[in-house]
Amino acid sequence: MEKIPVAILGATGTVGQKFIYLLENHPTFEIIELVASPRSAGNRYVDACNWKQDSPVNEKIGNLVVKTIDDRLESKILFSGMDASIAGEAETNYANLGHIVISNSKNHRMDKDVPLIIPEVNPDHFDLVKSQPYKGGIITNSNCSSMFIAMVLAPLYKKLGIEWVQVSTMQAISGAGYPGVSAMDILGNIVPFIGGEEDKVETESQKILGKLVNNQIEDAEFVISAHCNRVPVFDGHTENLTIKFKKETTVEEVKDILSNFKGIPQEKNLPFAPKNPIKVFEENDRPQPARDALFDKGMVTSVGRIRVDSIGDIKMTIMGHNTIRGAAGAAILNAETYVALGYLD
Amino acid sequence: MEKIPVAILGATGTVGQKFIYLLENHPTFEIIELVASPRSAGNRYVDACNWKQDSPVNEKIGNLVVKTIDDRLESKILFSGMDASIAGEAETNYANLGHIVISNSKNHRMDKDVPLIIPEVNPDHFDLVKSQPYKGGIITNSNCSSMFIAMVLAPLYKKLGIEWVQVSTMQAISGAGYPGVSAMDILGNIVPFIGGEEDKVETESQKILGKLVNNQIEDAEFVISAHCNRVPVFDGHTENLTIKFKKETTVEEVKDILSNFKGIPQEKNLPFAPKNPIKVFEENDRPQPARDALFDKGMVTSVGRIRVDSIGDIKMTIMGHNTIRGAAGAAILNAETYVALGYLD
Amino acid sequence: MEKIPVAILGATGTVGQKFIYLLENHPTFEIIELVASPRSAGNRYVDACNWKQDSPVNEKIGNLVVKTIDDRLESKILFSGMDASIAGEAETNYANLGHIVISNSKNHRMDKDVPLIIPEVNPDHFDLVKSQPYKGGIITNSNCSSMFIAMVLAPLYKKLGIEWVQVSTMQAISGAGYPGVSAMDILGNIVPFIGGEEDKVETESQKILGKLVNNQIEDAEFVISAHCNRVPVFDGHTENLTIKFKKETTVEEVKDILSNFKGIPQEKNLPFAPKNPIKVFEENDRPQPARDALFDKGMVTSVGRIRVDSIGDIKMTIMGHNTIRGAAGAAILNAETYVALGYLD
Amino acid sequence: MEKIPVAILGATGTVGQKFIYLLENHPTFEIIELVASPRSAGNRYVDACNWKQDSPVNEKIGNLVVKTIDDRLESKILFSGMDASIAGEAETNYANLGHIVISNSKNHRMDKDVPLIIPEVNPDHFDLVKSQPYKGGIITNSNCSSMFIAMVLAPLYKKLGIEWVQVSTMQAISGAGYPGVSAMDILGNIVPFIGGEEDKVETESQKILGKLVNNQIEDAEFVISAHCNRVPVFDGHTENLTIKFKKETTVEEVKDILSNFKGIPQEKNLPFAPKNPIKVFEENDRPQPARDALFDKGMVTSVGRIRVDSIGDIKMTIMGHNTIRGAAGAAILNAETYVALGYLD
Repeated sequence: MEKIPVAILGATGTVGQKFIYLLENHPTFEIIELVASPRSAGNRYVDACNWKQDSPVNEKIGNLVVKTIDDRLESKILFSGMDASIAGEAETNYANLGHIVISNSKNHRMDKDVPLIIPEVNPDHFDLVKSQPYKGGIITNSNCSSMFIAMVLAPLYKKLGIEWVQVSTMQAISGAGYPGVSAMDILGNIVPFIGGEEDKVETESQKILGKLVNNQIEDAEFVISAHCNRVPVFDGHTENLTIKFKKETTVEEVKDILSNFKGIPQEKNLPFAPKNPIKVFEENDRPQPARDALFDKGMVTSVGRIRVDSIGDIKMTIMGHNTIRGAAGAAILNAETYVALGYLD
Repeated sequence: MEKIPVAILGATGTVGQKFIYLLENHPTFEIIELVASPRSAGNRYVDACNWKQDSPVNEKIGNLVVKTIDDRLESKILFSGMDASIAGEAETNYANLGHIVISNSKNHRMDKDVPLIIPEVNPDHFDLVKSQPYKGGIITNSNCSSMFIAMVLAPLYKKLGIEWVQVSTMQAISGAGYPGVSAMDILGNIVPFIGGEEDKVETESQKILGKLVNNQIEDAEFVISAHCNRVPVFDGHTENLTIKFKKETTVEEVKDILSNFKGIPQEKNLPFAPKNPIKVFEENDRPQPARDALFDKGMVTSVGRIRVDSIGDIKMTIMGHNTIRGAAGAAILNAETYVALGYLD
Repeated sequence: MEKIPVAILGATGTVGQKFIYLLENHPTFEIIELVASPRSAGNRYVDACNWKQDSPVNEKIGNLVVKTIDDRLESKILFSGMDASIAGEAETNYANLGHIVISNSKNHRMDKDVPLIIPEVNPDHFDLVKSQPYKGGIITNSNCSSMFIAMVLAPLYKKLGIEWVQVSTMQAISGAGYPGVSAMDILGNIVPFIGGEEDKVETESQKILGKLVNNQIEDAEFVISAHCNRVPVFDGHTENLTIKFKKETTVEEVKDILSNFKGIPQEKNLPFAPKNPIKVFEENDRPQPARDALFDKGMVTSVGRIRVDSIGDIKMTIMGHNTIRGAAGAAILNAETYVALGYLD
Repeated sequence: MEKIPVAILGATGTVGQKFIYLLENHPTFEIIELVASPRSAGNRYVDACNWKQDSPVNEKIGNLVVKTIDDRLESKILFSGMDASIAGEAETNYANLGHIVISNSKNHRMDKDVPLIIPEVNPDHFDLVKSQPYKGGIITNSNCSSMFIAMVLAPLYKKLGIEWVQVSTMQAISGAGYPGVSAMDILGNIVPFIGGEEDKVETESQKILGKLVNNQIEDAEFVISAHCNRVPVFDGHTENLTIKFKKETTVEEVKDILSNFKGIPQEKNLPFAPKNPIKVFEENDRPQPARDALFDKGMVTSVGRIRVDSIGDIKMTIMGHNTIRGAAGAAILNAETYVALGYLD
């Protein structure tokens, strides 16, 4: 079978590199174009990029000559890891030209006609693309911290209803890109603030868990309150969650709901789909980012310490790989699901 | 003026070393006796101890011959950093013999007749010692994580009343003693569990903020729910707090209450008293353990990011030095206050 | 083809776990027996072991009941990660009973009749096993720090001769096992001492590069002087090397010799053989443990910054994965090579 | 006694902040002027600076209005922590205007008529200032890594002569300033390269240990070869040294020479002088940056593991605080010594 040609936008950045790293040997997508800033354009990728992954860049990719956003692209699907300072306009332009932009950038996430997708949770939201004014379309995935929260809340919301969620995050440095966080700020330290992050965590899940009615998303109605902290961890965001449900429940029921959760990516056995999107740990000291983030290709949301809470109902700790399931891997699974559902045909 | 002779129990341990380190040059206390395990006993302290502080042990102290718990002591005041496995019985024995045991161990903290003291908060609880069945007495300070919570809640509880408090802690490795946490478990990692810690955090503050009525403490009535995490930070516990008050309030009022809080240690200008027990930061990325833990001798509780919460009323991040204000320094200030209030006479 | 049944000695320890982790899905070896301390014996492995790897233990292995060193084993090949306190006698006993013990322990490494093998370097030393007084045999691999030095020196020694080598190591914490290094000692710190390590580094390479004459190894004659340091890195030992050769050479020649080095594992395309045992970096800031240790299954010795030295002739920085190529992976490749050379038949 | 008014050049940078932090309460110097980039100029220091020290900036300093390099200064002594991109010309201009520039920047260090001073080692080199073509003068201190090497070599060179020195450094992140090293590059990692550092280490000591003859410095004649590595340590450079002397010696003699070394700062009991410039450790696992860097105001060079070497004569590990004794503190002690020797009169 012929592979679908794809391009990477923002190819030299942290997320762009991760796209390239993860798509090497992908069974259905083939990278044929790379787009980066004018500074890189015209050079071979291997020369333009300060490659930071743990194996050398694929030779074929390395030899591609980097394009700019002014060049016309041939790929149907564009994976965007562009910087927020330019992603807004550039992605719109690409969509106007007929491309399907699978974006990890924050710019269009909260646009009314842009779906914010977790394919296990709200694949029906892909329909929103049809109402976009573009020849192509824009599809986004959530912020890395929101991803794991929305994934865990989704099946619980459906069965138990949710009143409120309190969350304290302990976020890895890779979430800030490169060079990102200064070592002087984080080595042996905690920074109890990440610009703009609490807003995203407090609003994205409601859209993801929202209902598509008449081509509009009605946000799910519950309150999230977040403390976001940066910690000296390389990959993997850890989050303490306390949840107040609408219905009474038990620790066992919550474990069951989470363990049994599956969606279309699992049904269709997509390449980037984890066997189970949520893994429930019984050990009392898990999940841990350094040990568990890479489980099942880094595409799993790990949950542990599910126990009764004295203010809400249940508290737990969740953790996931912020640059895979929380960014590039999420976008790839979005694209796989979009294709598998026949939207591209 | 003659100094008060004191002994250190558990002198070779982490807390014991910190007592010795902090009491060097103390204006009113003078260490004359050191007690440790039989393995160390009979040796000079400098030979018995694997000293881990950042300046060499004082020569006079280093030459003291280590005693065991079977030896009779001359000191009136004993600072105890003994391991919990033996502190319970040993401290009782010392109190029976007439010593005032200022203990950092957890064993007697929740005993009905043992005061759990923060001298800025509940110095009247010292009166409980009189009802103890001992010739001497036992006085305790709180767990290192509870300390900063109770300090911050105390003035707020008095003015605003409290319904509940949610807390997520990010605790430094020094809290686990030496060797304590394996580097394999914490380097670039988070461990979302600390044995027994959540229980202490959820119960100690209510005793500290309780009312002494008829020689009994009536616990303050509010709920605390805790997530406790170990993080790769050397010293300084950081804690995200969300509080539901009984009365309406504002961010400004909370800042005022915390900034203006003072107690007897400040009034009496005691050696280990910080100028203000609570420091309120306006910068949005503070407090940070690596930058702020040692402020004002490590005796300050730092508070930042005070803001409105959408579930409770106010959320904030607090931080303090876990082995100084949260352990050895707390005990020393307890002793200073006890003496300054004339209880020893 | 039928797989060769193997056992893991010291199965619950750090190296033992790594053996199990790496041998999952091995094409020719199948773990059928696990041996650990009496405390673990009689329990299922999954219950006996504090598993610390980054994916869950294989279910079939997890259900194996752990045996003790007093139990008779069926496996022909035994991989030993036993603690040095018992490995000496136990390995001898197993060899007497007819097993081939592939050991990562230090106890027998310097025995005159025990080969210390790097299969790319001295596979002819396997012949030494024939002169052992056992029905079976003992084969060892080097210390994790010596491994990368010997690997790099081997082809250079052959072509250029060596007078002396100075080395400063920066060794990962995983080299000390679990719990191993206290976080209090290494977080944000350097410990300029590792007990016994400098001795091993200064002597093992000469045996590995030695010549087998009349069933005896004549050590290679050059001097190694080592500084060994522990650093806050999880996996991957980095080593600064300065070398004085017997013949004149150039940076380019050294690069050529190292890049082109291959041995029997490469010729026979063994499962754990890296494509090239040595990778030469041209970037001036490589190799780095966090980026490069896992390259080609963690079986590569990375070399960078090859440049002229003003005291010796050439200096460079080398790096390898201490628990894979420097321990469990090395032992597995030893076993693969031993089998591939027909010694087991 | 009236204090000497001083200015800080590059006041908002890492070294500039350290000058301000260290000079608070200085008995003879008083900061009256701060110079920074045009972006900061005209603002109060507290508003212009992203203060990163562990106690708040002094209020009086905080209220000083920042000047630019175009403003005329009143201070006789200027401490320069200016960025190398502008320090060269700016320091020359200030010297022309009659100021004594005590510089931590690298620009003028190797100028023939600029002394590179360690006041315990070569205070006679201050005389070079007289031959400078300026109305004022420029005095420099060495690179942070060179400092500790030169300090240790100085007394050994005098008594034993030196042929060559091999050094491997493990350098703290604070040496790279702020933001400096990305956390993505150094968390749990080693970077075996620091741009320009090996050159400085290999050449500065020979000038410091050189002889002043006819107003010219004849460099000391020995070879230094360096490997420079960046490690995840906050403050404190650790260095493995191997030394070949001209005369035979013993471990004991080397210890004696180093322990007894003193200079003019000690004789004159200057405020920033450590009691002994070199501290020799007997414990085999010291010095360690996290434990020993702040010893005696951070002004000590710590030495441990002095032992016989099999290639050179003696090897050892040395360590010092890179931003205090290796930078701002060094400059302050240079100024104190310059004043104490009467050069300013």
